[in-house]
Amino acid sequence: MSAEQVKGLINSSAIAPVRVGILGFGGLGQAAAKVIAPKREMVWVAAADQKGYAYNAEGLDPDACIATYQSLGSLGYLEPSGILSNRSIQDLIGQASVDGYFLALPNLPNTFMASVVRQFIQSGWRGVLVDALKRTSAVEQMLALKDELQNAGITYMAGCGATPGLLTAAAAIAAQSYAEVHSVKITFGVGIANWEAYRATIREDIGHLPGYDVERARAMSDAEVEALLDETNGILTLENMEHADDVMLELAGICSRDRVTVGGVVDTRNPKKPLSTNVQVTGRTFEGKISTHTFTLGDETSMAANVCGPAFGYLKAGASLHRRGIYGLFTAAEVMPQFVQ
Amino acid sequence: MSAEQVKGLINSSAIAPVRVGILGFGGLGQAAAKVIAPKREMVWVAAADQKGYAYNAEGLDPDACIATYQSLGSLGYLEPSGILSNRSIQDLIGQASVDGYFLALPNLPNTFMASVVRQFIQSGWRGVLVDALKRTSAVEQMLALKDELQNAGITYMAGCGATPGLLTAAAAIAAQSYAEVHSVKITFGVGIANWEAYRATIREDIGHLPGYDVERARAMSDAEVEALLDETNGILTLENMEHADDVMLELAGICSRDRVTVGGVVDTRNPKKPLSTNVQVTGRTFEGKISTHTFTLGDETSMAANVCGPAFGYLKAGASLHRRGIYGLFTAAEVMPQFVQ
Repeated sequence: MSAEQVKGLINSSAIAPVRVGILGFGGLGQAAAKVIAPKREMVWVAAADQKGYAYNAEGLDPDACIATYQSLGSLGYLEPSGILSNRSIQDLIGQASVDGYFLALPNLPNTFMASVVRQFIQSGWRGVLVDALKRTSAVEQMLALKDELQNAGITYMAGCGATPGLLTAAAAIAAQSYAEVHSVKITFGVGIANWEAYRATIREDIGHLPGYDVERARAMSDAEVEALLDETNGILTLENMEHADDVMLELAGICSRDRVTVGGVVDTRNPKKPLSTNVQVTGRTFEGKISTHTFTLGDETSMAANVCGPAFGYLKAGASLHRRGIYGLFTAAEVMPQFVQ
Repeated sequence: MSAEQVKGLINSSAIAPVRVGILGFGGLGQAAAKVIAPKREMVWVAAADQKGYAYNAEGLDPDACIATYQSLGSLGYLEPSGILSNRSIQDLIGQASVDGYFLALPNLPNTFMASVVRQFIQSGWRGVLVDALKRTSAVEQMLALKDELQNAGITYMAGCGATPGLLTAAAAIAAQSYAEVHSVKITFGVGIANWEAYRATIREDIGHLPGYDVERARAMSDAEVEALLDETNGILTLENMEHADDVMLELAGICSRDRVTVGGVVDTRNPKKPLSTNVQVTGRTFEGKISTHTFTLGDETSMAANVCGPAFGYLKAGASLHRRGIYGLFTAAEVMPQFVQ
């Protein structure tokens, strides 16, 4: 079989580009817009922030959107397709023809994303939703909506960023060599040139520190965040984090949640990663040998690349499921992401 | 949500154990029997070799089967459920109630496995078939049967061993971080205590050496294999091997086949691996950075563990697809394997 014939096999299943929306337009949403822009199989048609939204069925321009958001504070000011609204998500859902949304919203408070998903369910919209949630409790709120999502005709992909997401999927693959999985240990290194580009993400990280929670982190002023980072020389060291990798691997039947640990080091003043992000999966083979598989991310890959790439890969996989009439909730450990061209 | 509640979510989708058959009972088939024996979600009911088969709806005992095969040369001698037959596969398909088969057959000649699959199609049997084929040309013969498999109600999982299989799936996950994948480089190390336990596998490896092909390797006497291995001190060094990882990653849209290379070192006289098996995925992120993700297998995991674990993980995933009425052909790069408990 020639490469041409294989291409024929691929093309025979070719379908119209997936029309994609992005909810949230901070650092993650903006990166997502850049990731999706060059893709042939997807067209980015919609995005919303707190104060407005932009919708263009022909496709939005990332540079114009980012410039408008950064200079004026909302996509609602975008000419000609921006609309200012204080119920931007609800308005966008009602107006736009979108096959799938990436929920790039900061989940503050911890119930915010679930409330957004309830808006989708109540609106009668059908399609694919993808989140890059991190906390176990946040993903559990989505699990509780499983039947409602199924009945609403929504295919929901949970925990589909970097971790949980990329690394959880790698762990699910690695587990296949073992009769029993003893531990899954995720250790991440993140380097960011300056924390202000990822204010919401850094606040979520601070919420994991001893003595903090998400509410307290959210209530901190920028000056207070600065002061905290000054004390640690810009480094945040996080251990035994509440990360949904645990419940996702438990749900996939791979191991109980207490065998999954997540920790890492975030450098908020240096784009170089303080350590190589990796997941180690230790188990016992059928012959009784104990061993460890390791999946290590290249240091040059940014958090944005490792979150947004998988998110759209799972969105494509979710769109395949949705076309087959398969609705409900799936996690990154259950479904193989599809590569978006 | 408590661990108990999550368990409820898992159990609510619980189904009867998958009834599994194994075709081929050499080193790989015997290892597969040991891998599956302790699983609650699968029951091993059938196996066939060249001269006979064994079928027991209540389950077969791996130790008894292996002892019979090793002492008498065929499962057909197993008491009381063995049957001697010179058309063992055809007879087994017709007689046994099996949900899915693992095709652990040596693919010699290179068209043998495809001919077996045609027997399944012609028999009217419906279920899941899983192979651990290695050669591109062998997997391409299966791709050509895609429509026939679909029409026959068979869900066929191709290339679901270690490589292709486990490492191809890891590469498909790793690719998600990149806008473009530049190379996928698979390097394996295999150590086996003595080559005689894996005669067919070693002959397939010899077929990859310069100056050899599968037919010539197949025609070699044991003494000739011994003589060849004496020359190399038992080491086989393989480069640019014809491995189906290439067509599988191309089919998944991840990169063209020429960007995928497979090589390795096999030590036929030492169970210790001569190097750690790994896959390196190099690509360009959306920001233009070049980087490499690496997935490395623990040295203590055997070829048998890394082939049979994934094979049954894909068989479970294939059974889920089959229950949903999804038939046809899928590769290890397209479907997430499910962990078998």
